[in-house]
Formats: sequence, C-alpha cells, structure tokens
Amino acid sequence: MQTIRVDTPSARYDVFTGSGLLATLVPRIEKAVGRLPRRVFVITSPEIWALWGETFLQSFREEPVTLFLPPGESHKTMASVERLTREMARAGGDRGSLVIAFGGGIVGDVGGFVAAIFMRGIPYVQVPTTFLSQVDSSVGGKVGVNQPEGKNLVGNFHHPRAVFADIGVLGTLSDRELHAGLMESIKAGIIRDRALLRFMDEHSGTILDRDPKALERVIVASIRMKAGVVNKDERESGLRMILNLGHTVGHAIEAVTRYKAMLHGEAVAWGMVAALYLGRRRGTITAGQMDRLESLIYRYGPLPALNRLRAGKLLSAAAGDKKNVGGVRRFVLPVGIGDAGVVEDVTPTELEAAIRYMLEKGKAGRSAG
Amino acid sequence: MQTIRVDTPSARYDVFTGSGLLATLVPRIEKAVGRLPRRVFVITSPEIWALWGETFLQSFREEPVTLFLPPGESHKTMASVERLTREMARAGGDRGSLVIAFGGGIVGDVGGFVAAIFMRGIPYVQVPTTFLSQVDSSVGGKVGVNQPEGKNLVGNFHHPRAVFADIGVLGTLSDRELHAGLMESIKAGIIRDRALLRFMDEHSGTILDRDPKALERVIVASIRMKAGVVNKDERESGLRMILNLGHTVGHAIEAVTRYKAMLHGEAVAWGMVAALYLGRRRGTITAGQMDRLESLIYRYGPLPALNRLRAGKLLSAAAGDKKNVGGVRRFVLPVGIGDAGVVEDVTPTELEAAIRYMLEKGKAGRSAG
Repeated sequence: MQTIRVDTPSARYDVFTGSGLLATLVPRIEKAVGRLPRRVFVITSPEIWALWGETFLQSFREEPVTLFLPPGESHKTMASVERLTREMARAGGDRGSLVIAFGGGIVGDVGGFVAAIFMRGIPYVQVPTTFLSQVDSSVGGKVGVNQPEGKNLVGNFHHPRAVFADIGVLGTLSDRELHAGLMESIKAGIIRDRALLRFMDEHSGTILDRDPKALERVIVASIRMKAGVVNKDERESGLRMILNLGHTVGHAIEAVTRYKAMLHGEAVAWGMVAALYLGRRRGTITAGQMDRLESLIYRYGPLPALNRLRAGKLLSAAAGDKKNVGGVRRFVLPVGIGDAGVVEDVTPTELEAAIRYMLEKGKAGRSAG
Repeated sequence: MQTIRVDTPSARYDVFTGSGLLATLVPRIEKAVGRLPRRVFVITSPEIWALWGETFLQSFREEPVTLFLPPGESHKTMASVERLTREMARAGGDRGSLVIAFGGGIVGDVGGFVAAIFMRGIPYVQVPTTFLSQVDSSVGGKVGVNQPEGKNLVGNFHHPRAVFADIGVLGTLSDRELHAGLMESIKAGIIRDRALLRFMDEHSGTILDRDPKALERVIVASIRMKAGVVNKDERESGLRMILNLGHTVGHAIEAVTRYKAMLHGEAVAWGMVAALYLGRRRGTITAGQMDRLESLIYRYGPLPALNRLRAGKLLSAAAGDKKNVGGVRRFVLPVGIGDAGVVEDVTPTELEAAIRYMLEKGKAGRSAG
C-alpha cells in the first residue's frame, strides 16, 4: 500500500492505494477518520454493488444504508442530488452521518456533492472503482453535477476525509474504461511528469495487460501529480488550471454529444490532440514531440470516431466552457514534455483550426494502428 | 451608519447598517468588495423589486441581470436553485460574476446558496430588506433550501463579502413582518443581551411605531450579538447552537403547517414560549423571569392561533429536527436573562408538556392584551 498526502489550506487527508483495501475498509476508515457514526450511507451504482458489494461489506459490523445512483452522466443531475439527500433524511441521516462514495467518477462527484450540502455539509470518504476516478476525480475536492447549460455547472469544493483506491477493483473494469482512464495519466505525464510518460511509452503492453505492478506505478504517479498541483492551488485560481489540458475541447465534445457518445477520458484524449496541435502551431512543443505524444494517445486507444461532429458546434460549446473567466478564453497548452501553461489569447480562428485537425484525425476513430 | 465586523476562520466581512445605503450601493460594494465584475446578478422578489428596484439601480452604471424568486417558503427549493443557476449560465455568468441577494430571508438563503454552488462558488453580497433578515439570516453564512423532509435540509456555509442593511427599506414592511422580525431580537436579548431586552421592554411603543433611532438601536444590537456568536463558532459545533432558542419547536410548527400558517419569527416566538416553560420547569429561569419574557413576546405580537395543531404531530416533527446530532435531542434553554445553554437530555415527556403549555397559550392567538 502506498499513501499520498493531500494538504491544502482547507483540508488534509490521505489517498491510500494498493490491493485488498476494499475488504478491510472499516478499520482503515476508522484509523483515518475516526469511529464510524450511527448512520453510514453508501452511495454507489447498481453495477458496482452487484460486483463488489459483498467484498465492500466484509468489514462492516452493521450494514450501512445503501443508496443507488444509476450509471451515466445523464444521472449526474440536481434531481439525483435532491433524491439522495431526501432519502438520507428519511433514513435518519443527521449532521454526524458519514457518506461513502463507492463507484466511478460520477458516483464520486454526486456523492461528494450530496455530502457537501446535506445539513450544510457532512464528512465523506471516496472509494473510487474506476481507473479514472482513482487517478483524478476522487482527489482534490471538486464535486458537483451537470446542467443542460454545462458540465459541473453547480457544485462545491468539499474534500473527502480519505480516499481508498483499491487496485484489485479494476479487475472488473472494461477495457474501454481502463483505456479512457489511462488518458488522464497521459495528461498527468504531459503536464508534469516526463518519467511517467516514458514509463507509459515503454511499458504500454504490460500496462494494457493490467499487470498490477505496472498499473500501481501509473496510478501512484498520477495521484502524486494531481495532489501536488492541488496542494499548491486548491481553488483553481492559477496552477490547478493546467489539470484541464484537453478539457476545453473535451468538454465541448461531451456537451455536443450530450455526454452519450464517449467516456470522459476519451473526450479528453481528443481534446488533448487539439491542444497538441495548438501547442505545435504556437511553438510550445516541437513537431517531433507532438507526433510522439499523439501516437502515445492512440496507442492507449481505440478512440471513438468524430465523424458526426461539426466544427462550428464544438467551437461555440467550447466558448461557453466555465473555465473562461470574464469571457477570456483560457486554454491549456503543453510546453515541451512535462510542463504546461495557460494562455488567454487563443483566437476563435486558432481554436477552429485545432478542432478541424482533431476532426480530421478522428474521422474514422483511432486505434494504435 | 454603523459597521459590525464578522471575523471567522473562513471569512472576514462587514455588516453596514443605516439609512440611504440602497441608493449608494455600488460605491459601497466597490469599497468593500472590489470593482464590480462584468456580470452582476440581482436575485430578488417581484414585490421588493417593484417597491425598491428604482432606488436599488440608482448607483449602477450598467444595469445588472435581475432574476426573480417568487415570495414564500414554498419557493425555497432545489427547483428554484436549479432554475436560477441555469438562468445565470444562459446570461453569461462565470466564475468572476457577483450575486447580490436583495430581499428577505428566503431570497438571502436561496441567493446565497445559488452563489455557493454556481461554478462551485462565486462571491455574493447580502442586501436584506426585512427586519428578520437584517438581524439574523444575512449574517453568518448559512445558506440553503428546504426539502419536504425538513427545513434547510440542504445548503452550505458560504459567507457574503458584505452585508448592507438599509433601515429605510423597512418602511414598506408590513406590521406583521416587522413584529415577527422583532422576535429574533427578543431571542438575541434572552440568550446574550440583557441591555437590549431592557431597551425593548421600556421602548416597545417607540419601536413598534418604527422610530428610526429606536429600530437602529435594536438592529445593531441584534447583529452584534449574532456576529459575536458566529465569530466564536462559525460551524455551529457548540456555542452557535444557542442561536436556535425557540427553533426546535418553531421548526416543528413550520413543518406541520407546511410553512404556510405563520412567519418564521412567529413560529420561533411560540417555540420560545415552549422553551421558557421548559426552562422554568428545569429551574434555569424563575417563574418571574418567565412571566416577564413571555409577556414581552406577546407585547410584540399578535401571534397566530395554534388551535389547529396537535401535540403529537409537533412532537414527532421536533424529533426530526436536524440539530439533533446522532439522535440526541439537543434543546436550547434560557439561563436566567441574557444567557442560554444546550441540553441533550430533554425527554419526550418534557417536550410534550412544553408543547401542550404552548398550545394552551396559543388556543386563540396572542396579542399584547
């Protein structure tokens, strides 16, 4: 087991990664957070619960109250939050209750937001079950839901008291989800960690074959990168922005396809392709670096085809992205390999060119070939 | 103008009270908070806007975006929050936007919650227009909405950047609303401020006649009391609980009558009568003190009749009050005059006796007579 410390002005907690955490959750939570309260609520998805519920419950003396969130971004809504908080109230939840968010990124974002606002905020613990949520969304305290006008339009910063990322749980993950999650690790490498990128380049076979040691290496490095950035800039006033590499165009793809056509990591992967193009055009990365990074992304594919998308629609969706404070278009560009920067002067013409490049590359989908 | 400082671990801001603040809002906001951003959203009620919108706009160079919340607790819902945040997104709101909550307590609670969760939290300013919201809800950062299972069941702690309580605005307040608001000042006196209570006792005529000097004296003292408590216990882990004198039974009345039969201050007034009874029964106040305080409450009435309420229903509603951490019934008792304490061992029998006493007193409503 490895432990990564998150330490920000408003919270201090540990992310634990390793195997066998799930079956021994209660003593671990009690060590990290304190004695379990009378009411513990597990917010999870029916799929995850069917696969892992029994293991999850192994260390519980009293069965917690289980609340379900159906899978998919279409349930990451205020309506779900409202239903869950009401169910908690009816089941006797109070200010001393604990929420455990047990599932992928959507469960974590919704479960964390439920904990953030129930009785004006109660503690919660993240038990992420997908690669993506283990390396990204379970760390950093960003919680919230989508609205028709935009992704994560409402939410809070509400840190978990602890995160338990059990690598064993990834065994039931589909290849597609694993590959989509690994895109966030590629992102971590591009913006902050050359060594991780080299490892992912040299060991793509072992990683994609789910070798536990290789996966743990990638997960720990990705979490360390994220925690390091969050520790320096909890509220995304500056540095934390770089975590959004690939997200301006990625969010636009998700919005235009109504979060149905692809997984978040896949959309971000395409968004990174657009960002790499812009970086090369502006000279922040070389053509050689762009080729190397782009082919690495495809190697961890396949990525869904983009042939049904229109540049114009993506462009206007990207302009509404909430990272654009005061109407300025903030955009994260790769700077060489292992660094990134935020620029505010990307013109619509440049953005359109990047989107067109991406659409051309994505005409027929992309795999390692 | 008087200035009262709120200074907690997570926020520091000023409450400004006086006359003529509304017409000069922009320079005051810019002095306290900084330059107005590109998008300013005013969340207000149609009634307040019809009466005071013109005065409000006097100091604005560019007209802000006005969003309306219909009056009444029935609109203090997640549905309202969802609608308002979506309207803000459609009107170009971003992370740099400012919300001004301009209205009574409901507008403040909903507007503050909208600001707390829009894009994971943006700044807001409170411009309370009722006596109750000026002395109570605009200070302290508690924001949120009701759910069928309970009042303020979801919300956040999100402090305003400044509060502007213009006493002139109280001119259009109905007698009933003014009287209900003054109940919170009586509460402030009972739990922390003998001098305020004596002033309210000796000058009830001038206060109820809306003499500006007398009103300002009461408002400033009430805000000082609240700010003093919040400064010591921002998150209601201890001391802040005493602000809930009268609220356990008050909330029960509101829940049972579905927030339709009486104003919050009126329900709290009846709740204080129940709390006074319990205090006398437990010996934390004398019979003489109880009589004096109870008659003071009625002098600031009339209070609506309770003849349609049943003790059993109130009792079970009070048990579900969210201040009862871990199922323990926390109850705030007056301790002499000018102090209060929280007890955790109130039995259902005691609570029922207090409720029955209150119901008997409230059979036919209560006025000064």
